Amino acid sequence: MTKQGLLVVISGPSGVGKGTVLRSFMAQNENVRLSISATTRSPRPGEEDGVHYYFLSRERFLELAGSGGMLEHAEYSGNYYGTPRDMVQRELDAGNDVILEIDVQGAMQVKAARPDALMVFILPPSMAELTRRLVDRRTEDEVTINRRLAAARGELEQAHRYDYAVVNDNIEDAVEKLAAILRAAKCSTRYLNDFINEVQCL
Amino acid sequence: MTKQGLLVVISGPSGVGKGTVLRSFMAQNENVRLSISATTRSPRPGEEDGVHYYFLSRERFLELAGSGGMLEHAEYSGNYYGTPRDMVQRELDAGNDVILEIDVQGAMQVKAARPDALMVFILPPSMAELTRRLVDRRTEDEVTINRRLAAARGELEQAHRYDYAVVNDNIEDAVEKLAAILRAAKCSTRYLNDFINEVQCL
Repeated sequence: MTKQGLLVVISGPSGVGKGTVLRSFMAQNENVRLSISATTRSPRPGEEDGVHYYFLSRERFLELAGSGGMLEHAEYSGNYYGTPRDMVQRELDAGNDVILEIDVQGAMQVKAARPDALMVFILPPSMAELTRRLVDRRTEDEVTINRRLAAARGELEQAHRYDYAVVNDNIEDAVEKLAAILRAAKCSTRYLNDFINEVQCL
Repeated sequence: MTKQGLLVVISGPSGVGKGTVLRSFMAQNENVRLSISATTRSPRPGEEDGVHYYFLSRERFLELAGSGGMLEHAEYSGNYYGTPRDMVQRELDAGNDVILEIDVQGAMQVKAARPDALMVFILPPSMAELTRRLVDRRTEDEVTINRRLAAARGELEQAHRYDYAVVNDNIEDAVEKLAAILRAAKCSTRYLNDFINEVQCL
């Protein structure tokens, strides 16, 4: 029987570099899958179903969510977003680790549904540095940046509800820490419970 | 202020290779100290006080143990053995990680006194392999080996009381897992609590 993969939840404020850390982590580690969200919003040009999102009708989304088919879900600006439970479970059963990059609210829903999920928060080295990163992206105006910084403060207050925090001071270092967290989790006596019980008969 | 080091408890059955794993780990990692036990037994030829053991009189040992000066202690064959709390605390305060290589009974005393201790159990890949390693050492007769194997079974039953289990199939792999466990522990939100509270003001 293939050993189940780990369910890993990653959150962190906008601008902290979650995407960069995750891309680099995925490039360096095998048997890791990034979860694909489902949404009721329309595809934007270039977005493919099953690649960027699973695009679902409102009816189908609510039916799935109502029957426990979403690990977490929420409504933003009139559209629903969520994590389909089946897809995640299929990858875990195949022995792949599955990473959910989701916000604090969704993360707490996952934690409630799956207490075995590994909860990781990506921290900025400082608010000053987070501000600099948001400004340097040059993709948002000052009002948006200030809104994101206010949201970041709220999110940071929830960081202690996660198991681990990785300070993204340096990408390589953050990737190595994330790898150590997953590696250590696979040495936890809870994860190795079956082997611990078996070893006496081997 | 220097960040406190980690208190790491390592246990595992006789013959599993704890000593080899720890020597290799210590050679590859800085700021790690191996705790030195105190004992009331007499020094053997070549043993130095403060290097192999702290050699204490029976009176001094019991006085220390009675006043909470031992993190754990036990009596074997009429002699006392224990871990002096002061020495451990001094190293932790200096920011060094301190490893206690102790048996299950002592480990559980440490866990009760210091719930923040990182509890790691070294597992053999199988009982067959553990038997082979004990036989290959050629230092014990058959009666002693059988006694050690019986003790090993009893110890393995306690492995689930530890946080982590490292299978010593291959020294290098076991050392890397131990390093990942310590690295991950330094990313735990409990360990980073102060930084998480501060980052919003940085």
